[in-house]
Amino acid sequence: MLSKNQAKFIQSLHHKKFRLESGYFIAEGEKVVEELLESSYNVESIFATKEWFDKNAAGLTKLQKRNTALKRIEVTFDELKTISALTTPNQALAVAKIPVQVLDEANLMGRFSLVLDEVKVPGNLGTLIRIADWFGIQHIICSSSSVEVYNPKVVQSTMGSLFRVQVYYVDLPEFLNKIKTKLPIIGAVLDGDSLYKTSLPKAGLILLGNESKGISKELLPLVSQKILIPKFPESHAESLNVAVAAGIICSETLRVRLK
Amino acid sequence: MLSKNQAKFIQSLHHKKFRLESGYFIAEGEKVVEELLESSYNVESIFATKEWFDKNAAGLTKLQKRNTALKRIEVTFDELKTISALTTPNQALAVAKIPVQVLDEANLMGRFSLVLDEVKVPGNLGTLIRIADWFGIQHIICSSSSVEVYNPKVVQSTMGSLFRVQVYYVDLPEFLNKIKTKLPIIGAVLDGDSLYKTSLPKAGLILLGNESKGISKELLPLVSQKILIPKFPESHAESLNVAVAAGIICSETLRVRLK
Repeated sequence: MLSKNQAKFIQSLHHKKFRLESGYFIAEGEKVVEELLESSYNVESIFATKEWFDKNAAGLTKLQKRNTALKRIEVTFDELKTISALTTPNQALAVAKIPVQVLDEANLMGRFSLVLDEVKVPGNLGTLIRIADWFGIQHIICSSSSVEVYNPKVVQSTMGSLFRVQVYYVDLPEFLNKIKTKLPIIGAVLDGDSLYKTSLPKAGLILLGNESKGISKELLPLVSQKILIPKFPESHAESLNVAVAAGIICSETLRVRLK
Repeated sequence: MLSKNQAKFIQSLHHKKFRLESGYFIAEGEKVVEELLESSYNVESIFATKEWFDKNAAGLTKLQKRNTALKRIEVTFDELKTISALTTPNQALAVAKIPVQVLDEANLMGRFSLVLDEVKVPGNLGTLIRIADWFGIQHIICSSSSVEVYNPKVVQSTMGSLFRVQVYYVDLPEFLNKIKTKLPIIGAVLDGDSLYKTSLPKAGLILLGNESKGISKELLPLVSQKILIPKFPESHAESLNVAVAAGIICSETLRVRLK
């Protein structure tokens, strides 16, 4: 049964301020919670229906061995609704510790990473994390003004990929200025070279801009390789969604890596 | 000023049932409404703030010449909030006629089109329409079970591309069975050939499946070219978002067309 204090605590975790203060976040949805159980994340408690606990008994036993302090709280579907941040709550909600991610530049060498300049829409960040996971990109570096990764909508839309990708928040101009001599910075801009004709390096940073403003003026001079996702010659479309653009570029980087 | 009857009518258009009954839909957001004004769509009325009318005076004069019956209703931001389907309403909302789209198979020959098998998430359909517009794909054929294209969330997420792309709803098994001898049917599946190694035809249908179930069992045997978007060898990701997958495949078709 769900206590009033538990409900209040979980509801507070819907808000960034309380997540940062407490150091905890919530993960919801069958797939996301299952992936969380298999990850190295520190899970504090699971609120789920009897059906869900029965179905996931094996995974939970393993987790309980690793993490003896794990609390399991059986709740009804109606109780779940009161603590869920989703419009359609699922059968399980987990509370886990926000891991401390320390960016070590050495880990970025010899591989591709994503750099996000003010990505604001939670679903976009989630989809970007899923793309990174698919294409073997382990590190995502965000400007401090980007949407927070433990926002419940972001967590949900990563479909579990969040637990396999590292996400950092940094002062982006400072970071890029420091690293620019060590790694190429690839940016998609309207006056770039066609992605179908240009040759990509074997490692680098893929810089993606804000949903409506693109890459900020301050960062544009730091781009060392300007690329363009070609558009059909007669098309009147103005832009692609940032996650779709990232998917196309990341796929090209995998083509290069698999060669 | 907004009348009670007008407010009631627009609120009814938030629901599919009333859109289909009345034959009207709503378009919101500055960019979307601007693109609507420039399209061949039949706009019935525009509810907007004074600022918006002032800013768009030129476009409106042109539209009024083509469409003398156009009604312009100046509303306050608070009135707009009561009729908006968005969480953050914008400065303008337009009511327009749903055009009758008749699928003529002859129009699909010699080009690429998208075929959607039960795409359910409004934002995904919107993003798919935006991708089609960017890559010069004019026709999207949806299974009748797919999300309706005049859903306000779909309209919003197309960013105006909706007005340049034709979307049809058909009995998909019947349609594909009839057309399969005339056009290749390309489907992304887990046992397909790597997109980096296979060669795509110069025209065809790109079949995309449901967000969680993929391409349905009934349609799989109709796929004539099975392709796979390669995954990083050690990745544990299970899937890509349907719109991201579509973006990667559509980009490949443009590469072929531009050759």
